Amino acid sequence: MNIALIAAPVVGVVALLFALYKATYVNKKKPGNERMVEIASYIHEGAMAFLLRQYRYLAVFILVLFVVLGLLISWKTSITFLFGALFSVLAGYFGMNVATKANVRTSNAAMESGINEALKIAFSGGTVMGMSVVGLGILGVSVSYIIFKDPEIITGFGLGASSIALFARVGGGIYTKAADVGADLVGKVEAGIPEDDPRNPAVIADNVGDNVGDVAGMGADLFESYVGAIISAVTLGLIAYGDNGIYFALAFSTVGILASIIGVYFVRGDKDPQKSLNTGTVVSSFITLIMAFVLSNVFLDSYKPFISIVAGLAVGLLIARITEYYTSSDYKPVKRIARESETGASTNIIGGLSVGMMSTALPIIVIAAGILVAYYASNGATDPAQGLYGIALAAVGMLSTAAMTIAVDAYGPIADNAGGISEMCQLPKEVRKITDKLDSVGNTTAAIGKGFAIGSAALTALALFSSYTQAVSLSSIDITRPTVISGLFIGGMLTFLFSAMTMDAVGKTAFSMIEEVRSQFKEKPGIMAGTEKPDYARCVDISTKAALKEMIIPGLLAVFAPVLIGILLGPEALGGLLAGSLITGVLMAIFMANSGGAWDNAKKYIEEGNHGGKGSDAHKAAVIGDTVGDPFKDTAGPSLNILIKLMTIVSLVFAKVFLTYGGILF
Amino acid sequence: MNIALIAAPVVGVVALLFALYKATYVNKKKPGNERMVEIASYIHEGAMAFLLRQYRYLAVFILVLFVVLGLLISWKTSITFLFGALFSVLAGYFGMNVATKANVRTSNAAMESGINEALKIAFSGGTVMGMSVVGLGILGVSVSYIIFKDPEIITGFGLGASSIALFARVGGGIYTKAADVGADLVGKVEAGIPEDDPRNPAVIADNVGDNVGDVAGMGADLFESYVGAIISAVTLGLIAYGDNGIYFALAFSTVGILASIIGVYFVRGDKDPQKSLNTGTVVSSFITLIMAFVLSNVFLDSYKPFISIVAGLAVGLLIARITEYYTSSDYKPVKRIARESETGASTNIIGGLSVGMMSTALPIIVIAAGILVAYYASNGATDPAQGLYGIALAAVGMLSTAAMTIAVDAYGPIADNAGGISEMCQLPKEVRKITDKLDSVGNTTAAIGKGFAIGSAALTALALFSSYTQAVSLSSIDITRPTVISGLFIGGMLTFLFSAMTMDAVGKTAFSMIEEVRSQFKEKPGIMAGTEKPDYARCVDISTKAALKEMIIPGLLAVFAPVLIGILLGPEALGGLLAGSLITGVLMAIFMANSGGAWDNAKKYIEEGNHGGKGSDAHKAAVIGDTVGDPFKDTAGPSLNILIKLMTIVSLVFAKVFLTYGGILF
Repeated sequence: MNIALIAAPVVGVVALLFALYKATYVNKKKPGNERMVEIASYIHEGAMAFLLRQYRYLAVFILVLFVVLGLLISWKTSITFLFGALFSVLAGYFGMNVATKANVRTSNAAMESGINEALKIAFSGGTVMGMSVVGLGILGVSVSYIIFKDPEIITGFGLGASSIALFARVGGGIYTKAADVGADLVGKVEAGIPEDDPRNPAVIADNVGDNVGDVAGMGADLFESYVGAIISAVTLGLIAYGDNGIYFALAFSTVGILASIIGVYFVRGDKDPQKSLNTGTVVSSFITLIMAFVLSNVFLDSYKPFISIVAGLAVGLLIARITEYYTSSDYKPVKRIARESETGASTNIIGGLSVGMMSTALPIIVIAAGILVAYYASNGATDPAQGLYGIALAAVGMLSTAAMTIAVDAYGPIADNAGGISEMCQLPKEVRKITDKLDSVGNTTAAIGKGFAIGSAALTALALFSSYTQAVSLSSIDITRPTVISGLFIGGMLTFLFSAMTMDAVGKTAFSMIEEVRSQFKEKPGIMAGTEKPDYARCVDISTKAALKEMIIPGLLAVFAPVLIGILLGPEALGGLLAGSLITGVLMAIFMANSGGAWDNAKKYIEEGNHGGKGSDAHKAAVIGDTVGDPFKDTAGPSLNILIKLMTIVSLVFAKVFLTYGGILF
Repeated sequence: MNIALIAAPVVGVVALLFALYKATYVNKKKPGNERMVEIASYIHEGAMAFLLRQYRYLAVFILVLFVVLGLLISWKTSITFLFGALFSVLAGYFGMNVATKANVRTSNAAMESGINEALKIAFSGGTVMGMSVVGLGILGVSVSYIIFKDPEIITGFGLGASSIALFARVGGGIYTKAADVGADLVGKVEAGIPEDDPRNPAVIADNVGDNVGDVAGMGADLFESYVGAIISAVTLGLIAYGDNGIYFALAFSTVGILASIIGVYFVRGDKDPQKSLNTGTVVSSFITLIMAFVLSNVFLDSYKPFISIVAGLAVGLLIARITEYYTSSDYKPVKRIARESETGASTNIIGGLSVGMMSTALPIIVIAAGILVAYYASNGATDPAQGLYGIALAAVGMLSTAAMTIAVDAYGPIADNAGGISEMCQLPKEVRKITDKLDSVGNTTAAIGKGFAIGSAALTALALFSSYTQAVSLSSIDITRPTVISGLFIGGMLTFLFSAMTMDAVGKTAFSMIEEVRSQFKEKPGIMAGTEKPDYARCVDISTKAALKEMIIPGLLAVFAPVLIGILLGPEALGGLLAGSLITGVLMAIFMANSGGAWDNAKKYIEEGNHGGKGSDAHKAAVIGDTVGDPFKDTAGPSLNILIKLMTIVSLVFAKVFLTYGGILF
């Protein structure tokens, strides 16, 4: 057995042990005073309860698909599918369990020991999520391959991961934004109490939302990208280079995990938390790059695949930088939106929408250039199979340090929660200052993380798309054919429909939340005076139930639409659908994420005292923009990442069915 | 010479004579009292001045492109290009000239004779635009073909029409919405004076905007679709059926014009103006359909092309109905937005955005089904050339009664202007009631007309896309190739970039307008008391200059982007770009048009007394949504129709260049 096949599962286990070690570290820390423990337990229990109920829903879906796959495709695929789903669930469970313990401990550390210790705990909490994702990911893919020795079968693992990811992202996204919007509209706007005020009945739901949306949802999203990228590299690697193509992909991913573990040790306490996180990321990327060059020469006897990997990494970094430009208040676009808030909400909204649309231009050029470089650098001109493998490697390259990226990403909501807990427990002002500082770093990393998630989704989906065309043995997908053009149209439309559905779901759920909060204020007039306790559980319950209900239809749409078109119009038209959803999905995801981020920071920029500061008319206009941006950037936008990957992997898994029965209409 | 070749130019001349007859009819009517004549002359002069200055800018662009075409392609193409541009200019000039005379005469007729006479004048004004467009269109295409006998050369005519259309739509769209938003934000919101109040310095600019945007811009848009559809039918018809394919396309278009002339006579004075307009449309469509069946059998010896034509007509009608559902206050979506306005502007905006996105689903399914039916009904399965001709015929079918559609469409802004003039001249309340009634019918027809413009743009662009693949001799455009995928991405991105640019332009221009109005109120405090006259001309000047300046960059982008990609990545990647811009362009156009329409009518629905009526918080929220919708539905959205057609026709005309020099990068 090749060394790569041994190393991959071993390092997977190492990553999981490392996660366990970090989880123990977090758990050992003091959770603070009684009040803090109480509040934290509400959040923890609310989040875990949501996850468990969500898993119960998903169990039905997974079971049905398990049987369908077994009957239509193969029972081996069914089994890997089951494990893909199970591993995604485990990663989400581990990661969120620790995150909801790290939050209060971060808060306490900020009070007792200062910013360095607080940063370390928050980041350790994030690291558990990061290491769980990559550990379970590489373990699942490599063991599946060792057992079945067939890339086709391990696509089932990807489908399992994708299915969980979709529901986690959509459900979590609806939950977090409905609670956020609901809490804000009644609490901040109507009752005039500050954010995270314990008198707001929706405040716990809001904090739970940060965990189920930004920790569990994000983790499942990147688990899917990570697994999807490796699977497509394995599928295409076999065609391009034989077994060595598979070994290289696994070896390289293994190295990325080890580099991330080393990187974690470079996130030390520092005056500037942002710098500290950056150092860790740079170190792990640097090690990975050097090893990519070495391994590329060792396994494939050529430095060229290394260039494809560099292209992928470059795409990720550039998109992150461009995202920062369009969403940070240091640059012109956000400043312009802030200025436009002076003439009212309508100019603020028009400005934010146009910044979001404008912000698609550079990332798309970067992605297009990345695709071309990755393909042609890997001999695509003379050997298309090697070129396609190059594209898959670009995706793997971008995700090689995913453990680090996820750790930094999950750090954000932990710091955010720590701030919320400090506020709710009325900890001293200096504590709040520390958590605010950690939180504001988290906002930047979140925006960058979103750009990264979109970029990796685009490359992964494209790599899976290439695997799909191989699986249905299409030598071309010809857009001069009317069925393919129709597929393109329908694929593009699905991303609009899906966005509308998820945004509607947020609107509806927020509406019930608003009514609940209003009625609590009415029923218990003592809440505002502090003499009565609000019923947090009822708000948590509303978000939970609504999010679970509303995730079903968009979720089923994503699974059934490609199957329907594949059957009705055939595999080539389905290829059109996938391409259509890929391009519009990426465009809409960038547009929505950046509009939302820009509105958010324009509001914050005004709150810093510009254009009249807090309470001014400009600020009121900016708050409206920020609220519109919430479902944009945290529900609809990120869900699109998964939609495009899921539809592609569904098509890939069911390829055989379309080959046999597809195209009954024309 | 075939009878169709003789009939086409003859009927073209007939249509023009009919336009002249209707223009004389309008001119003969009394323009009302001195004050009315004065106000109307401001509007007329402002509109004509804009048009002439715009043409001066365009002359430079046209001249440069004339030389480039002559040197790179052929001087014959240059000549048809010149005529395409010239004819588009003439149609715009005629149509708007009469429209800006019909407005005041409609107003006067409402005062002196009642609603029947007023409707007749407004509709006659619209008819001049409709007949000018189709008359010049069919004349230009048929004479070009008679002279050069080469479909390739007459594509130049389409390019000329497209170039003018783009600048007319973009420039007109920026003009009208900047003036509208500017006038509203200061006049209605800040100064608290009603719409069309003569004390508002921007009021004339606002009324000029209706003409240059909704009459001239819309006319140029449909001139381009009309000409483009016929040209692609001629190109593809020759391949599919030889000369008969050409003759049939011309004969059928000729019949459509005659049917429209007959239809005009069925728009009689009636109690219900909507019903009256509908009768005209139904009659002309019915005649056209019967003749399509007859001609299809006579020229092509088969009823099958007739089915493709029916498919095109059905797509148009269905999209119009779906548009009505999503944008009329009689149905759930608009009512929902109105209800959501109660919880503030943010929920109103989220609701409007999601309705717009949701509203793409059905039209896209209809378009996809229409494409498949049009293709396979015309033997596409066995003879792809005949199938592609079927798609072109669907576009021609949809546009066959364009004269009628444009007449109904242009009627709207004339009625709107008539209302404005009545208000500015303080005519009796009953007069205003009549013009309001005519105006409200105009709003419905405008929404439906927008749906029609998008549908026809989609089919026309697709037909031109097919012509393009023939011209560059591509047997397939394969989206599994990375250059083509890159093209798809870039094409999709261009529609987002273009939308952002045009929306920005509106924002910037509206901002200058707001400052101008504010400073006039400051400088001349007597304006509000009615003792001083505002300086209308300065506002007109601001809109004119800004609109002309801001149209240049998006316009050049549309022309140069496809050329650049064709040269860099080759004709196949350019095909990807065209497909990418086609699908996202259609999606974005539907999304923006329907979001805008829904916001507009949600506001009106609240103004009718629902959810608190005028002045309530819900109303304030709805006004914000309406203002956001303005550049959506009247600038960015409609401009996309042209973008997708123009980029396709640019590619078609320069096909030879890409074949010889294209693909220098890979």
